[in-house]
Amino acid sequence: MSIKTGKQYLENLNRLSPEVWLNGARIKGKLSDHIAFCGLIQSQASLYDMQSEEQYRDKMTYTSPDTGDLVGLSFLHPTSKEDLRRRRDMMTLWADRHHGFLGRSPDYMNTALMAFSGAAELLSGINPQFAENLKNYYVYCRENDITLSHGFIQSKISRLSALLGNGNESSAARVNEITQDGYVVSGAFLLNTQGATAEELLIYPQPPITLDTVNPYAFFFAVPSNLKGIKFICRENSIKSSSRFDYPLSSRYEEMDTLVILDQVVVPHDRMFFYGDEELSESFFAKSNFHTHVSHQILCRYIAKTEFLIGVLECLAQSLDKSEDRSFIEKVSDVLVALETLKAFVIASEEQSSMDEWGIMVPNPKPLYAANAWYPKVYPRIVEAIQILGSSDLIMIPSEQDFNSPISPYLDKYLQGVDMDANSKVHLFRLAWELSLSAFGGRQTQYERFFFGSPDTLTERTYSNLSDREKYINIVKQWMTNK
Amino acid sequence: MSIKTGKQYLENLNRLSPEVWLNGARIKGKLSDHIAFCGLIQSQASLYDMQSEEQYRDKMTYTSPDTGDLVGLSFLHPTSKEDLRRRRDMMTLWADRHHGFLGRSPDYMNTALMAFSGAAELLSGINPQFAENLKNYYVYCRENDITLSHGFIQSKISRLSALLGNGNESSAARVNEITQDGYVVSGAFLLNTQGATAEELLIYPQPPITLDTVNPYAFFFAVPSNLKGIKFICRENSIKSSSRFDYPLSSRYEEMDTLVILDQVVVPHDRMFFYGDEELSESFFAKSNFHTHVSHQILCRYIAKTEFLIGVLECLAQSLDKSEDRSFIEKVSDVLVALETLKAFVIASEEQSSMDEWGIMVPNPKPLYAANAWYPKVYPRIVEAIQILGSSDLIMIPSEQDFNSPISPYLDKYLQGVDMDANSKVHLFRLAWELSLSAFGGRQTQYERFFFGSPDTLTERTYSNLSDREKYINIVKQWMTNK
Amino acid sequence: MSIKTGKQYLENLNRLSPEVWLNGARIKGKLSDHIAFCGLIQSQASLYDMQSEEQYRDKMTYTSPDTGDLVGLSFLHPTSKEDLRRRRDMMTLWADRHHGFLGRSPDYMNTALMAFSGAAELLSGINPQFAENLKNYYVYCRENDITLSHGFIQSKISRLSALLGNGNESSAARVNEITQDGYVVSGAFLLNTQGATAEELLIYPQPPITLDTVNPYAFFFAVPSNLKGIKFICRENSIKSSSRFDYPLSSRYEEMDTLVILDQVVVPHDRMFFYGDEELSESFFAKSNFHTHVSHQILCRYIAKTEFLIGVLECLAQSLDKSEDRSFIEKVSDVLVALETLKAFVIASEEQSSMDEWGIMVPNPKPLYAANAWYPKVYPRIVEAIQILGSSDLIMIPSEQDFNSPISPYLDKYLQGVDMDANSKVHLFRLAWELSLSAFGGRQTQYERFFFGSPDTLTERTYSNLSDREKYINIVKQWMTNK
Amino acid sequence: MSIKTGKQYLENLNRLSPEVWLNGARIKGKLSDHIAFCGLIQSQASLYDMQSEEQYRDKMTYTSPDTGDLVGLSFLHPTSKEDLRRRRDMMTLWADRHHGFLGRSPDYMNTALMAFSGAAELLSGINPQFAENLKNYYVYCRENDITLSHGFIQSKISRLSALLGNGNESSAARVNEITQDGYVVSGAFLLNTQGATAEELLIYPQPPITLDTVNPYAFFFAVPSNLKGIKFICRENSIKSSSRFDYPLSSRYEEMDTLVILDQVVVPHDRMFFYGDEELSESFFAKSNFHTHVSHQILCRYIAKTEFLIGVLECLAQSLDKSEDRSFIEKVSDVLVALETLKAFVIASEEQSSMDEWGIMVPNPKPLYAANAWYPKVYPRIVEAIQILGSSDLIMIPSEQDFNSPISPYLDKYLQGVDMDANSKVHLFRLAWELSLSAFGGRQTQYERFFFGSPDTLTERTYSNLSDREKYINIVKQWMTNK
Repeated sequence: MSIKTGKQYLENLNRLSPEVWLNGARIKGKLSDHIAFCGLIQSQASLYDMQSEEQYRDKMTYTSPDTGDLVGLSFLHPTSKEDLRRRRDMMTLWADRHHGFLGRSPDYMNTALMAFSGAAELLSGINPQFAENLKNYYVYCRENDITLSHGFIQSKISRLSALLGNGNESSAARVNEITQDGYVVSGAFLLNTQGATAEELLIYPQPPITLDTVNPYAFFFAVPSNLKGIKFICRENSIKSSSRFDYPLSSRYEEMDTLVILDQVVVPHDRMFFYGDEELSESFFAKSNFHTHVSHQILCRYIAKTEFLIGVLECLAQSLDKSEDRSFIEKVSDVLVALETLKAFVIASEEQSSMDEWGIMVPNPKPLYAANAWYPKVYPRIVEAIQILGSSDLIMIPSEQDFNSPISPYLDKYLQGVDMDANSKVHLFRLAWELSLSAFGGRQTQYERFFFGSPDTLTERTYSNLSDREKYINIVKQWMTNK
Repeated sequence: MSIKTGKQYLENLNRLSPEVWLNGARIKGKLSDHIAFCGLIQSQASLYDMQSEEQYRDKMTYTSPDTGDLVGLSFLHPTSKEDLRRRRDMMTLWADRHHGFLGRSPDYMNTALMAFSGAAELLSGINPQFAENLKNYYVYCRENDITLSHGFIQSKISRLSALLGNGNESSAARVNEITQDGYVVSGAFLLNTQGATAEELLIYPQPPITLDTVNPYAFFFAVPSNLKGIKFICRENSIKSSSRFDYPLSSRYEEMDTLVILDQVVVPHDRMFFYGDEELSESFFAKSNFHTHVSHQILCRYIAKTEFLIGVLECLAQSLDKSEDRSFIEKVSDVLVALETLKAFVIASEEQSSMDEWGIMVPNPKPLYAANAWYPKVYPRIVEAIQILGSSDLIMIPSEQDFNSPISPYLDKYLQGVDMDANSKVHLFRLAWELSLSAFGGRQTQYERFFFGSPDTLTERTYSNLSDREKYINIVKQWMTNK
Repeated sequence: MSIKTGKQYLENLNRLSPEVWLNGARIKGKLSDHIAFCGLIQSQASLYDMQSEEQYRDKMTYTSPDTGDLVGLSFLHPTSKEDLRRRRDMMTLWADRHHGFLGRSPDYMNTALMAFSGAAELLSGINPQFAENLKNYYVYCRENDITLSHGFIQSKISRLSALLGNGNESSAARVNEITQDGYVVSGAFLLNTQGATAEELLIYPQPPITLDTVNPYAFFFAVPSNLKGIKFICRENSIKSSSRFDYPLSSRYEEMDTLVILDQVVVPHDRMFFYGDEELSESFFAKSNFHTHVSHQILCRYIAKTEFLIGVLECLAQSLDKSEDRSFIEKVSDVLVALETLKAFVIASEEQSSMDEWGIMVPNPKPLYAANAWYPKVYPRIVEAIQILGSSDLIMIPSEQDFNSPISPYLDKYLQGVDMDANSKVHLFRLAWELSLSAFGGRQTQYERFFFGSPDTLTERTYSNLSDREKYINIVKQWMTNK
Repeated sequence: MSIKTGKQYLENLNRLSPEVWLNGARIKGKLSDHIAFCGLIQSQASLYDMQSEEQYRDKMTYTSPDTGDLVGLSFLHPTSKEDLRRRRDMMTLWADRHHGFLGRSPDYMNTALMAFSGAAELLSGINPQFAENLKNYYVYCRENDITLSHGFIQSKISRLSALLGNGNESSAARVNEITQDGYVVSGAFLLNTQGATAEELLIYPQPPITLDTVNPYAFFFAVPSNLKGIKFICRENSIKSSSRFDYPLSSRYEEMDTLVILDQVVVPHDRMFFYGDEELSESFFAKSNFHTHVSHQILCRYIAKTEFLIGVLECLAQSLDKSEDRSFIEKVSDVLVALETLKAFVIASEEQSSMDEWGIMVPNPKPLYAANAWYPKVYPRIVEAIQILGSSDLIMIPSEQDFNSPISPYLDKYLQGVDMDANSKVHLFRLAWELSLSAFGGRQTQYERFFFGSPDTLTERTYSNLSDREKYINIVKQWMTNK
């Protein structure tokens, strides 16, 4: 095989048919027909299709060193600045297609797996087989263009329970026993985004520390998402209908988040990438440069999304005859400055990239960590600019069906915009409403805000990655002793 | 008659059966059974019921000077500071019941009508009958405890069309002709909140200026909401189900906004309060102290709502074991300061009240205008504090049905809070989600932000009401000439 | 005696001649002639003179219950709301004279002493003589219109040294021995504002906790500022000349802050108000309602200062032809709202005052604590508004002497404002510069920001005084259980 | 000649002896001995000296194409990305020496002249001699390492007077007549920074528009600063003494701003670069890419200054034992993110540079305009972070003389920091005080805030340079039509 088409993606999903629960009932039938998933699945499928389209193929794929097949460029281990730029171009094509609304477009997890597999040698330290497993798994995913989701985060309570209680009562994810068939794992992970619409699931908890030689909470593995014992429990669904007029964003881009349950799941031996070593768990995560590599992808997404938001602001202003208003110019200028900042961060990260010990070219993490600390504060302000500009027009939004009903003439007469008919204006304002005031928009804002953790987590990570305390103290101290 | 019960309110609404359109179809059957209205109607009914309950009756009613019946205290024309305090106490009882989520609890429009009728004499200037009509209408509403909505705002485009086009093509609301039966009016008003669930409709446009002696855009009248030619077109409905667990706020407090259409509506002569005079339109509005009186009501609502939001913040912190975290204390302290500010504004407005020319005691408008300018900036920050505190726990919210399903044990195990079972925690976080991230919450935030107009409008109104330019310039100039 | 005149104040100061160090040298000669003090002393003198002026006397004084003499109203123990309003009127007269620039106009410490003496009975618990001493001292100050300063704050290091080291090495203020002549005290207090220009010094440290029965760090006393062993060490002086044109504010209002040293000072027995009891130290401070009473005074000052700042903003806008600019209106409107907030806080604190256990009418502390938490954040924003409005015109400010020199014609031609000659414009901009960009302005901003402690201290105090955690949690919990 | 030494710079200044007025008197004697100038002149001299020092020479100079002499690298016309990087390295060396406090270190005007001269051909359109003059002048300055200042800005009133009044009464800068000796010019320019300490003066007003064929307000020239009729009138001087302990910043870096007067100054014909054409005035300014080239220099300065401010924050925290406090970490992290942003902007501007029509490599203006719009808002927040961290310790700052006086032991005992003696702590806090609360600091903050104009000007320039309205509107419109 090689790059997947959208059609293949759909078929794979429907064949897998994972155990997905929504609103107290297990979903029967094809996911790709279900209202809560069909729009997203189509959007994802269209991304996969792009890879085969002539205008994009060269920019989005490369030749597999193993098979000679074309494979997705986001799997590429970069070994030069030029590779980083190629990766950026490819990721930008996808981001420009979904305008940044898919936090989990396939390049996100492809990049994650690329990062982890690039550092696989580190795993040989405890067991060469682990390194081999991870490298094989990477090749498997790359050659089959596998769609991945991941479970990294557990509830605070779960992690706490492992520290306090005895193992059996703890709700933290752990290996309960190791059998011939594999590792038997139970646990639950929060905010498994797109879990239900992925083919495989990567599990990599942050393990509670134990006094045992072998820490049963420390592991990293991957399994198919329909493996026995895996259940996806969906959150509140924010899709009301498939109408692209009424719900232009959620009908296309609503990524379901799930609580993924592992109930005595048997992880095959060749799918375990390490086990038992909490220190390795931490150092492997750090040395794989996961945060740095995926942040490079995220920046491409941020840029596409910010450009789209600027477009929405400009369209709203036009329809309200406010394009030249000082308060509009002020607001949109702030967003334009934010866009330049994002672009500068991505360029700086590439220009100052450096080779890691395994020959992977790693973008400079500093501008990327700066972006991660900063954009979660900026995004809500852009959304607020849309709210303030849109004002009460964002509330009075009738539906597609209203325009197809006897009352349509009243709408046509009373809801028109400046040089814009009522239907177009309502469509535009429904878009702005979804972005800024709907449940879909609320989840997007919250998602961007907490993409990489709470403000406190981000502050700590930012300081520890950007600080150079001694250097700056010395600048001042030396200067003060000058005469 | 006299004070209404909840049951009477329901019966009146169902008997009136106004023409309401939702999603392209006219609503058939009882509004009080319809999912988009039943929760709100019950909440309103419970407010009306309070008036008759023994523990509240004395504080919520007074004896009608005309009939000796008990009537609602928000209709009272205050003539002393004590009256203002009684009004405040009464309005606070209602606000504490709906926790400030009803922007149009009945006291809002009762207060508006009280304000207008108090200045009725001013209308005698053009026609004593107008003054008489308004006073009679006030008595009618007070004695029958009528539920009112209002249409004041038209689209910018409509108002512009009147200035530019000739009258026939304009979409601005206007009197087209005057017949024996009354004034024939066409037009449309935006954001008619609770229009569908009110018994009567007050219409008072801000008229475009014309060169005609009789300005056909200048009028003020009231009509029953089921009068021929009146149509209510609903906005996007944000109620998904009546589950109080899943949607604790929208299932109770979702106030539908409508575009209200007047299509050749015939306004009876005795329901017209003035006609044709654009200057009177402006001066009557100003001299009635509408903004001042309703702002007194609004402050009571703000206080109740802010207290509720503080409660939500405290509950969230408790369930997350963050009650003593510095970042929580900082955020909630800001809200506590805001609450003291609101309370101080209301007290100051009463203590510095003064009598108007018709013997009505008017609260000092300055603290009220300050509140109107300030709270729309504060409310979104409180909501943001909830978002930041709630973090990703606000996203992973399963539903009531999940808790009644086979997967319930997983939820019980993995979603519990600190000293809080999973069901209670999810219930709490669904409340916080509705407040801060759902379409209901989005509309609430937007509503508070634009309650009295756009930021630009508010700035202008604030400056013109609070400024005392010459006084402050003189303080500095005089001081500078001192030696 | 009774109320003091300005002349008497000067004579007292010059007779006392305390030990004041500035720039490495002890000040010789009359303080009232020294450039660093003369302007302030004149301003203070003018405040004292007001008390005897016919237009103010009735509002600023009352008849001493002990002597029948007229004494200053800020010494009055309020026993009714009316008394609180009289106190406010009196304090407003002084604040309007110095426009809020004197953080230590005499009413501040008069109010503090009023608060402490009102709770004197509490001191009888450990020794009736202590209560007697404090009451006598209050009468002494009131009848002689004594000018007071205070030392409450020590460096963190000093307090820490007491906790860690043994007593002898500690630098915390302590009683070293008790002799027939009195208590022998050593220590140092920071930010003793106007210490050099006061007649008496109140010392009340926050004592480090010890295991001893008698805590040598716990005491409260008052002494004349020229007592042997007391030294005032001045900070950087920000007065450059007495030119009222060049330095309109600092030439009048620069309050010197000092580090006050107590080096084996002998405090007479009748001037010690308690000793040895760290718990009493804390409870007496709290129960005296010191913070509440002085905050009432501070609010009067805040209001006067904010009005002056509004005047400056308006004058600047006028001279730059920006009075109608939207960005100016926006900024000044925010300040006008802040002014209304201050006014509402003071009224609310009086209207909701209540009697304490000793018959003193205490303003409601909640709006006052809210003000204390909030104004330190607001003041720097007002100053910033002046900076932004004034722009580069705040930099290009020649001096009085330039206007009296051969180059004066160039200034007249090139530095004029809109409808304003160059001399007046430069004078105005020098005022704005002093307020917002000079060392005087810097100290004022810092002083307002830290008036009652660091942001962290304020947050803690705000939460502990305004929070009503259980009440708000119950509102939400009860509501959630309703159906 | 070639690169200048510090000594030569001093000699040149003293030989020129321009007409400088301070405090109503003309300065006599050597500027380099005058308290208001000596520190700055020494700092500038040290910059010039660096060019000849072996460790810097190669990085700071290049070989003149005309003379083969070493000349300053900031004069280099860049023709490649590599040249831009060399320029950045050179400018960073100077910025790291003065830590960004010199807004007018010589590279600023060198860069400006480089930009103008690079576009000189454009001037041939009206007169080939003008182009020749400018090119010759550039060579003259480069070969002699001339220190330049500039006058671009006039008062609003002056420019207005030209539009309204007749020419004779206007105070706008204009050519009054053209004689054999040259152009006779009168006028005045604001905020001529370092004018008194420069050798030459560039004058380039933004001309008021006239109806005349030859606009007398439109011109661009350069003259020696001691030319007859040129007078420099100084603003308020904020240097109190040359003590590096007491005034560590102002004693080194206080750049005097002046009002420069041209009173019938005769500009030689070969020093006029164009005359009479208001359209050329605007287009030449734009096409020279002045803003872009100097912004590249400014970013190097911003980076050095921000690093110094981070050092100050870290030193303060250390001395107060707050290095691990969450509120400190939060604040300094924001500044670290700002630093990464600045660095990313400079890299992005270079990486995306492009060749202009005259073969000059121009940095991408977009990140530079973004920086210009953004840093003026950031700098005051960093200064505020210093104020908040430093708290009241920033007020209680005795002087060097106090430490050399009998009271020194008290300071040593009571003013020490954490692991820091009192003298060092006071020195550090005097630095922080100068930065954030003194007149020097006030002017620095105001200077950064208004470096390239008022907020309104910046917003307009930002939007016009960053906006791509049609592109973004089309993104949204196209997307909306997709099914």
